[in-house]
Amino acid sequence: MSQTPPRPPAGPPAPRPVPTSADVARLAGVSRATVSYVLNDASAVRISEPTRHRVRQAAEELGYVPHAAARSLRAGRTRIVLLPTVPVPVGRLMGHFLNELQWALRRLDYTVVQYASMGLDGDEAARAWAELRPVAVVAFGAAQLTPHGVDVLKRSGARAVITLGPQPVEGAHCLPVDQRRVGRCAGAHLLDRGYRRIGVVLPEEAGLEPLSGPRLDGVRQAVGGAGSGAVADVVPLPLAYTEEAAGALAARWPGLGLDAVFAHNDEYAMLLMRALLDAGVSVPGDTAVMGADDLLLGRLLRPRLSTVRIDMETGRHLAELVDHLVVEPDHAPEPRELMAARAIHRAST
Amino acid sequence: MSQTPPRPPAGPPAPRPVPTSADVARLAGVSRATVSYVLNDASAVRISEPTRHRVRQAAEELGYVPHAAARSLRAGRTRIVLLPTVPVPVGRLMGHFLNELQWALRRLDYTVVQYASMGLDGDEAARAWAELRPVAVVAFGAAQLTPHGVDVLKRSGARAVITLGPQPVEGAHCLPVDQRRVGRCAGAHLLDRGYRRIGVVLPEEAGLEPLSGPRLDGVRQAVGGAGSGAVADVVPLPLAYTEEAAGALAARWPGLGLDAVFAHNDEYAMLLMRALLDAGVSVPGDTAVMGADDLLLGRLLRPRLSTVRIDMETGRHLAELVDHLVVEPDHAPEPRELMAARAIHRAST
Repeated sequence: MSQTPPRPPAGPPAPRPVPTSADVARLAGVSRATVSYVLNDASAVRISEPTRHRVRQAAEELGYVPHAAARSLRAGRTRIVLLPTVPVPVGRLMGHFLNELQWALRRLDYTVVQYASMGLDGDEAARAWAELRPVAVVAFGAAQLTPHGVDVLKRSGARAVITLGPQPVEGAHCLPVDQRRVGRCAGAHLLDRGYRRIGVVLPEEAGLEPLSGPRLDGVRQAVGGAGSGAVADVVPLPLAYTEEAAGALAARWPGLGLDAVFAHNDEYAMLLMRALLDAGVSVPGDTAVMGADDLLLGRLLRPRLSTVRIDMETGRHLAELVDHLVVEPDHAPEPRELMAARAIHRAST
Repeated sequence: MSQTPPRPPAGPPAPRPVPTSADVARLAGVSRATVSYVLNDASAVRISEPTRHRVRQAAEELGYVPHAAARSLRAGRTRIVLLPTVPVPVGRLMGHFLNELQWALRRLDYTVVQYASMGLDGDEAARAWAELRPVAVVAFGAAQLTPHGVDVLKRSGARAVITLGPQPVEGAHCLPVDQRRVGRCAGAHLLDRGYRRIGVVLPEEAGLEPLSGPRLDGVRQAVGGAGSGAVADVVPLPLAYTEEAAGALAARWPGLGLDAVFAHNDEYAMLLMRALLDAGVSVPGDTAVMGADDLLLGRLLRPRLSTVRIDMETGRHLAELVDHLVVEPDHAPEPRELMAARAIHRAST
């Protein structure tokens, strides 16, 4: 095996030296530039097929892999698209959307990395993202990104900073995802069906606040606000995701005088409906119960659960937007709503 | 603003030049080395507090963020821990485990990035991971990693390659996660309760095969194999995750002559149990139904679902193992099983 430069003194020695492009060049009998051209598929440079073959074989033999970081330093720009992740269980809908997005970005030759921002917030998180020098950042739930954070990212070379969330952030391309829409749908449906005192479940689970607050606001909007103009009462109901908590809420249900409840999503709706039925509250006779997400499981309980169905724009569209903004950052298309919501009436309302 | 070198010709110009450490050095009136020492918190070098303050202020003013890649090139090693992700919906159990792992790694000063390997397999995936120069890789489901892939990663500087899965991979540190254990638990429970003709649901959903095949094998192990020594019959039942598919299976149920079914997990068990009840099959009178995962939702149907509860080792332990292997790659501790499984008897079996 050819010689390699000595390793830096910090830390214990690795079992074997890491092969470099210089090793490949020596073994193949070509220049380092040629190695770089061949392994990075630089088509502008004419290199004969036998030479290309020799370089690839030498790289294979030595186990050499180009260093994305070094390459990006030379090129002045990475192909990394960073997706900051949040510590919330990802449902089927969101999971599907993320898969589509990642597939489509890969097809456009981007390297997608997810980065968990837990424990960092606001500008600290933006600085941590910037250290990876992404060419684009797609942030779900823009709550933590500030105009300063966007600026840090852009100065570090990010050409596209896209946020998906309720509030626009200065400097970022904002795609509206307004959870109030889900609450408005549920509220309008319950109002339509004649209910006038509506409970709204607020999950106590960490990480769901960015959804639950806006959904409550949406129900309030649907009934005409909180003041004297409101055509129905809206009562927030904090609830932990346990049978005990649901049982305790069901036990004090008659005292609440509610004729309907929007339970944040189908899982909470199933939990609460079971507890209500077990406590002798009839659904929808005494109280209507409505969920959101249109889970298959919500159709398995009896009565079948009414729900808000949420549809997301395809991930492919978002991937194309990322690419568009990277190539032409100054010609952003008009932002459009990514999420659609509609009520589905079944037996529980 | 100070001058920066011209950008490479490829692509349209970015709105503003990216500030470099040379810009910070100029603004603060110090050397680039001093900037590097201050911003990388090199404690070995004595630098006065006023100078440190001046450097930090200049960096803040210019919006300069150190480049993780450049830093890692200088240090010869990154702090990146790569978690290849798989395109499967992540359940609450796994989501919790991943969160714990990421928190704990961050506390140990690692940068955790998730990388979606979709569309790449085997050695191609390993090469893509190696390009990011991770110091450690934690691969869930080792199916795609080969000894050659491990070698590529180690030669690129990875000091720890950890796989979580059923099969050890040469060169990697393998933590056994054996899904057959879940099947064995379910099989033993059903056998114990006197059932002798056991259906096993095989989800048709993409991405679940690495779980469903071993779970079926586990049930077969529990009943003593497939031959004449078996004390019960095991019948595989492919099933799509739709009400229609479950209804069709329930319609031909009497002809199957099964007295029990292990339905892969609680979601499929709920789907199938609902269809059986609607088709007039009594549970557990005619047929026992068992799930896995111990979802809260499984307790909401009647009869309450029997299940296999799966417990994972804490993510903190795995983070400590990563750090141990990075620091002392030649002194690996004894691998230990990450997953425990036990049957929980409720009303459906």
